Amino acid sequence: MSTTETRDRLVEFRRDLHRHPEPAWCEFYTTGRIVEECERIGVDALHVGPDALAPEERTGVPDADELERWQERAREAGAREDVLEATAGGHTGVVAELHRGDGPTVALRVDIDALPQVEADDEDHLPAREGFRSENEGAMHACGHDGHATIGIGVLEAIAESDFEGTLKVFFQPAEELIGGGKAMAESGHLDDVDALLAVHLGLDHPTGEVVAGVDGFLAVKHLDATFTGESSHAGGHPEEGRNAILALATATQNLYAIPRHDDGPTRINVGEIEGGTASNIVAEEAHLVGEVRGRTTELKDYMFEHARRIVENAAEMHDCEVSFEPGGEAPSATSDDDLRELVAEVAGGVDGVDSILDRDDLGGSEDATYLMQEVQERGGTAAYVGVGTDHPGGHHTAYFDVDERSLGIGVALLTETVLRID
Amino acid sequence: MSTTETRDRLVEFRRDLHRHPEPAWCEFYTTGRIVEECERIGVDALHVGPDALAPEERTGVPDADELERWQERAREAGAREDVLEATAGGHTGVVAELHRGDGPTVALRVDIDALPQVEADDEDHLPAREGFRSENEGAMHACGHDGHATIGIGVLEAIAESDFEGTLKVFFQPAEELIGGGKAMAESGHLDDVDALLAVHLGLDHPTGEVVAGVDGFLAVKHLDATFTGESSHAGGHPEEGRNAILALATATQNLYAIPRHDDGPTRINVGEIEGGTASNIVAEEAHLVGEVRGRTTELKDYMFEHARRIVENAAEMHDCEVSFEPGGEAPSATSDDDLRELVAEVAGGVDGVDSILDRDDLGGSEDATYLMQEVQERGGTAAYVGVGTDHPGGHHTAYFDVDERSLGIGVALLTETVLRID
Amino acid sequence: MSTTETRDRLVEFRRDLHRHPEPAWCEFYTTGRIVEECERIGVDALHVGPDALAPEERTGVPDADELERWQERAREAGAREDVLEATAGGHTGVVAELHRGDGPTVALRVDIDALPQVEADDEDHLPAREGFRSENEGAMHACGHDGHATIGIGVLEAIAESDFEGTLKVFFQPAEELIGGGKAMAESGHLDDVDALLAVHLGLDHPTGEVVAGVDGFLAVKHLDATFTGESSHAGGHPEEGRNAILALATATQNLYAIPRHDDGPTRINVGEIEGGTASNIVAEEAHLVGEVRGRTTELKDYMFEHARRIVENAAEMHDCEVSFEPGGEAPSATSDDDLRELVAEVAGGVDGVDSILDRDDLGGSEDATYLMQEVQERGGTAAYVGVGTDHPGGHHTAYFDVDERSLGIGVALLTETVLRID
Amino acid sequence: MSTTETRDRLVEFRRDLHRHPEPAWCEFYTTGRIVEECERIGVDALHVGPDALAPEERTGVPDADELERWQERAREAGAREDVLEATAGGHTGVVAELHRGDGPTVALRVDIDALPQVEADDEDHLPAREGFRSENEGAMHACGHDGHATIGIGVLEAIAESDFEGTLKVFFQPAEELIGGGKAMAESGHLDDVDALLAVHLGLDHPTGEVVAGVDGFLAVKHLDATFTGESSHAGGHPEEGRNAILALATATQNLYAIPRHDDGPTRINVGEIEGGTASNIVAEEAHLVGEVRGRTTELKDYMFEHARRIVENAAEMHDCEVSFEPGGEAPSATSDDDLRELVAEVAGGVDGVDSILDRDDLGGSEDATYLMQEVQERGGTAAYVGVGTDHPGGHHTAYFDVDERSLGIGVALLTETVLRID
Repeated sequence: MSTTETRDRLVEFRRDLHRHPEPAWCEFYTTGRIVEECERIGVDALHVGPDALAPEERTGVPDADELERWQERAREAGAREDVLEATAGGHTGVVAELHRGDGPTVALRVDIDALPQVEADDEDHLPAREGFRSENEGAMHACGHDGHATIGIGVLEAIAESDFEGTLKVFFQPAEELIGGGKAMAESGHLDDVDALLAVHLGLDHPTGEVVAGVDGFLAVKHLDATFTGESSHAGGHPEEGRNAILALATATQNLYAIPRHDDGPTRINVGEIEGGTASNIVAEEAHLVGEVRGRTTELKDYMFEHARRIVENAAEMHDCEVSFEPGGEAPSATSDDDLRELVAEVAGGVDGVDSILDRDDLGGSEDATYLMQEVQERGGTAAYVGVGTDHPGGHHTAYFDVDERSLGIGVALLTETVLRID
Repeated sequence: MSTTETRDRLVEFRRDLHRHPEPAWCEFYTTGRIVEECERIGVDALHVGPDALAPEERTGVPDADELERWQERAREAGAREDVLEATAGGHTGVVAELHRGDGPTVALRVDIDALPQVEADDEDHLPAREGFRSENEGAMHACGHDGHATIGIGVLEAIAESDFEGTLKVFFQPAEELIGGGKAMAESGHLDDVDALLAVHLGLDHPTGEVVAGVDGFLAVKHLDATFTGESSHAGGHPEEGRNAILALATATQNLYAIPRHDDGPTRINVGEIEGGTASNIVAEEAHLVGEVRGRTTELKDYMFEHARRIVENAAEMHDCEVSFEPGGEAPSATSDDDLRELVAEVAGGVDGVDSILDRDDLGGSEDATYLMQEVQERGGTAAYVGVGTDHPGGHHTAYFDVDERSLGIGVALLTETVLRID
Repeated sequence: MSTTETRDRLVEFRRDLHRHPEPAWCEFYTTGRIVEECERIGVDALHVGPDALAPEERTGVPDADELERWQERAREAGAREDVLEATAGGHTGVVAELHRGDGPTVALRVDIDALPQVEADDEDHLPAREGFRSENEGAMHACGHDGHATIGIGVLEAIAESDFEGTLKVFFQPAEELIGGGKAMAESGHLDDVDALLAVHLGLDHPTGEVVAGVDGFLAVKHLDATFTGESSHAGGHPEEGRNAILALATATQNLYAIPRHDDGPTRINVGEIEGGTASNIVAEEAHLVGEVRGRTTELKDYMFEHARRIVENAAEMHDCEVSFEPGGEAPSATSDDDLRELVAEVAGGVDGVDSILDRDDLGGSEDATYLMQEVQERGGTAAYVGVGTDHPGGHHTAYFDVDERSLGIGVALLTETVLRID
Repeated sequence: MSTTETRDRLVEFRRDLHRHPEPAWCEFYTTGRIVEECERIGVDALHVGPDALAPEERTGVPDADELERWQERAREAGAREDVLEATAGGHTGVVAELHRGDGPTVALRVDIDALPQVEADDEDHLPAREGFRSENEGAMHACGHDGHATIGIGVLEAIAESDFEGTLKVFFQPAEELIGGGKAMAESGHLDDVDALLAVHLGLDHPTGEVVAGVDGFLAVKHLDATFTGESSHAGGHPEEGRNAILALATATQNLYAIPRHDDGPTRINVGEIEGGTASNIVAEEAHLVGEVRGRTTELKDYMFEHARRIVENAAEMHDCEVSFEPGGEAPSATSDDDLRELVAEVAGGVDGVDSILDRDDLGGSEDATYLMQEVQERGGTAAYVGVGTDHPGGHHTAYFDVDERSLGIGVALLTETVLRID
């Protein structure tokens, strides 16, 4: 097949996903489309949903109503019934395999979920201008995972058509944004025989044509999900009888941001979602906070979490409320291996369109790809997290984020050639 | 008709409303049932929806989606289509009139809306035990307005069957809990010729058999509805690029409660609802706070609001956010007239079941009945706000609130006799 | 002696005290001057310092350095050595007695301490203009206690010169501003045989010529004195090793003001003094907060204190700090007796210069005179707290406070005549 | 002179300074002792006080009372009158010069001020055990500047006795802890002809025997000194009339710590001192906060300061207070030059007692030595900040900090040899 045809098909696929962004564990349409592409390519093994991951390790799965709502949307958008059945209950994601004789077992991990973000809707934003803006209002591919899934398909097809000897497994991972799917894929068993793992991310403030051979500096992360429970009362009649869950939450929030910075390295704290109370004249009985802590090392993340827990608990008690924590997603830190990084850098030198190669760079964020990297490294394999630059007009996680589609071909070429050269 | 029959019918009516609690401006089913009862009684004039109030003075009307959702529920519960049509767009409420020759024009005001409160669902709670717990999960008659509407119907029927000479108007007012309907009814024109106004409230911590001839000490109230807008960013990658709307809201909340107490009398502040952000790893772009301030006098309420506004604005600016305020409901303070109060006390002495009479008591809360009282008083009429005791197991606005149904008959008898004696 | 002479002497005495304001338990010069006046008048018994109060019930006594510093100032201002000796260690205050045969034992209580307030120093302020502004920079008679002490002397002298039959005891009480001396005087034993107690306060927003026969509505009060202890660290090098006492204090302060208002009546909270830390680049190891809670009733005060304690403790624990509380002054609520109040009102009608008489009014503040009132009332006596109006340009406790000296004579006349008429 | 004698004299000198710690701009005794030692050694030029620095660039100079108090202490401790005169008004510090013919002009910068820290007073603390604990209670050499000054004298003496050819200038800099003296020395003119500058710091978590050839990673710093002014009122009587400066300060403090972390590198914030209010029952009219912001780069420091200013201003306005900022000390970031660093590392290899050499390390703190380094580098010279390890039982800026006196000799030897080898 001609390069132009391939490129056009990849762009088309990416735009289809972009029109149908789905949040964590709701990637029903997305999973269906990936399955279709894999079948078209003709893979040797295809694991969907519960077969692709360790279901009990999933975190952050939405409630049944929310899952059904998204499944219904996927159905209306034309998702296949067999895939909808296989993925019911939030068992999204795919592992696709090519078996091509003796040789190394290489894995590529891409993530596929979208974000709860309203997409920009004006002429400045190319997806709006060219008609492939999100059709799921309030959800958006604002972090390029539509492109990641596309690169996964592109590499699968290119290797299928090559003279590769060995085994290739592509992990289409759900729920990265919640740090919810990495552990479940890492413990699925599909990584047990993997010799080398590549993960890929577009953008990260690098322009089209730039490649980062091995991204480092992942921040370990842990979710924070706390519910404050007090007692309601009439705010005019008996304010003294209330135990104010909203006030407890406000105190917690203010103080969470004040956890001392740490000399050992970067830390992060965010309260990203709040909700509480029922009416202006009722002292709130319940309030709910969702956030996260991060740290350059697992120790720094633990330092932040320990402080966060103490703050939240004392904010509750201060206002005579109770608080309960939901177990939340979590991911360790990780490092790209030098060997694999050097190979990527070397390969990048020969890829069309690449004009700048960085050996390494800090992510300055978190990723649950680190679970997969750790799993492979602990079993004696190697791993690298590859950055493929893309001109993006808006920052990651903002309404104007978009990827330069030229970078899709670069990513496919870079990773395909790297897979071929691993031994 | 026998007293027992009447009493049974009132209880049945009250329980029907209790099963179908509807929040402010969504009283579609409730309005329909009131219309049916008025028609059964045979009133001389019946104003529904836009005819019953000054539509442009309504505040706190929910958005179209919310209104439609409740209208659909009302339809499913069997509401009449003609009433659904008349009340569409949140034009709920009724003014019913009896014209019985020359004599004073007397008004009775009752409120009909429910609260956003989950009702208790165990054997300790009589409505649950006897099968008339809320069927609209998350809404509840936790302030006795089901009983108020019932008393309105009871008085209408009793006066219709009496030898009353004059005009009686019963105002079934929507949206009291939001302080959203009082002004709209006060300015409807229907009060223009009213000589005496009675308003009634059950409970207020007074037991069955106790009557408060004139409630005073209303707190003036004003709603607070603020939306903070910042800028989202990736909380791990670029926390410094975010302008954190949740942090602004938390700062505002903490400081709102710290507005200095005032030596001139009681004040109140509450942040009753909060909501903000979209995901744990995104610095929140938007956050929303709903609350209220109160004061014994209108001046005290203004003092609180002025401080609240400054606090909210500076909390926003402190975190580089913008803030916008929605106009919200508001009610002045008011006082029961001595003459009318004395008449009620006198009448109460002869009512079966009344064993304790208080001349006056403080409400310690707010009420937009004060708009109607003011309107009548300013035109030279008199007004009194009458408390009818009822044993209530849980406090007002709590999950276990309930009224002792014996108090319905007491309320009807007390108010009917008072109407008859006004001259 | 002529009235003019007396009046001139009273004004001179008041101005002398005004020039030498001394804070709680440091009234060394003041005590000396009172002793001199009592000796001039010729009293029958004079109890100074440890003999005038129950020393172990004093609260809020400053440390030895502070006491010495003020004693030294008093010495320099000409205080008598014997009085300095008797009052050493913060045993200030005087009880002076006149024994004039059989008859009732009547007590008058006046307070004598000043406030830590810088006095205004411009032409608008009469004490500055006429040269009797505070010579103790940072201390000021900003609550009229210079006038109270003067009235005490005036009444003592007038009764001494009258045909009074009975016993008069004048209590010159220290440390009212700290709520620190009332209990110590109440338990001194000198009240045991008192039949009627009068306490007096100038001003309270009443103009010259107005008398309040019985002040009520005292707020019960309790001091709050908390020390937070964390751990210091270098704020640049190892912020994570600090346990930040200043941050704990800030959290406590913010939340103290947010204690819910109470429907049963007025409450108050104040954090009036803070101090903490040692340098900009050291995480603070220690921070100290001084404040108070009040309530219309003793129960309301306890409600406030219980909440305050929980808030302070959890603010400390939230930031991994310890906190310790100093026992602080405290005063109950109290009520003036009707009989005595009526007598005062009756007497006031005949006093020159009185043109307005109020039966009662709310203080809206606290006073440890309530300890003395309670003591007398519990033993079967009666008590009244009398307000003597005075035009005061600035509010109590502000830099421009001053008393209209015409009110001194009114106070003396009113109280003298009342003492004479008690039987 | 024998090595032992020298070593004993250095230890004695260091202990003398340790016994007499003096805070920023109050180093009167310290300056006097340095002058005496310089005269003993016989320097060629000696600049004291106003001659040693650009007086108008000093920041953080205490008020006249404070200066006098420390000058008096210095006098009592035996400071020379001529030095006290020269340094009056907070003109402390010395520049000492040796002129030894043609050759490079080399500068050594040591700092001499102490911290406001209470020194430990038990047997675990060597200075307490051996009798040279601070005699100025509340001040302490808790950062090793007593050792730095000693090394300055040691190098001066060693070079004086050597065959060095060139010019040596030793800068004894005051007020480093306040970031208050660096700029004033940098702009004194004495650096204009300097070819190479060495600065030295003991400890920094490096053990005795370890040398850091070039410390990097200075955090740029800026002081924050804000006074909130509201209005006082009686907290019981008229809380609503107060404008609460303490509440404004508490709000500012809470929110200062919540300034978002920055992805570009480490930032710091500290509120290190607070003070406000006058009495428990007065709403505070004034409150004062001293703190600092830092950042790895000057840009990061500016980011922090800009946020801090907005937070402080809005916290004031939120509570209807005014706020004013004092101009405060400030220091840029800086980097050690490679050439000089390599020379230090090379020399260190031959110094007795050195068993570990690090090329570089991060300071993770701030230093106004960076002003001197910048000044020299901008004029074409080179600079290095040298770390000399010392076993220190407690952390810097804590009550148990102490230096291992063996490191004094190592520091003198290392720097002397480096000076001799600079060309």
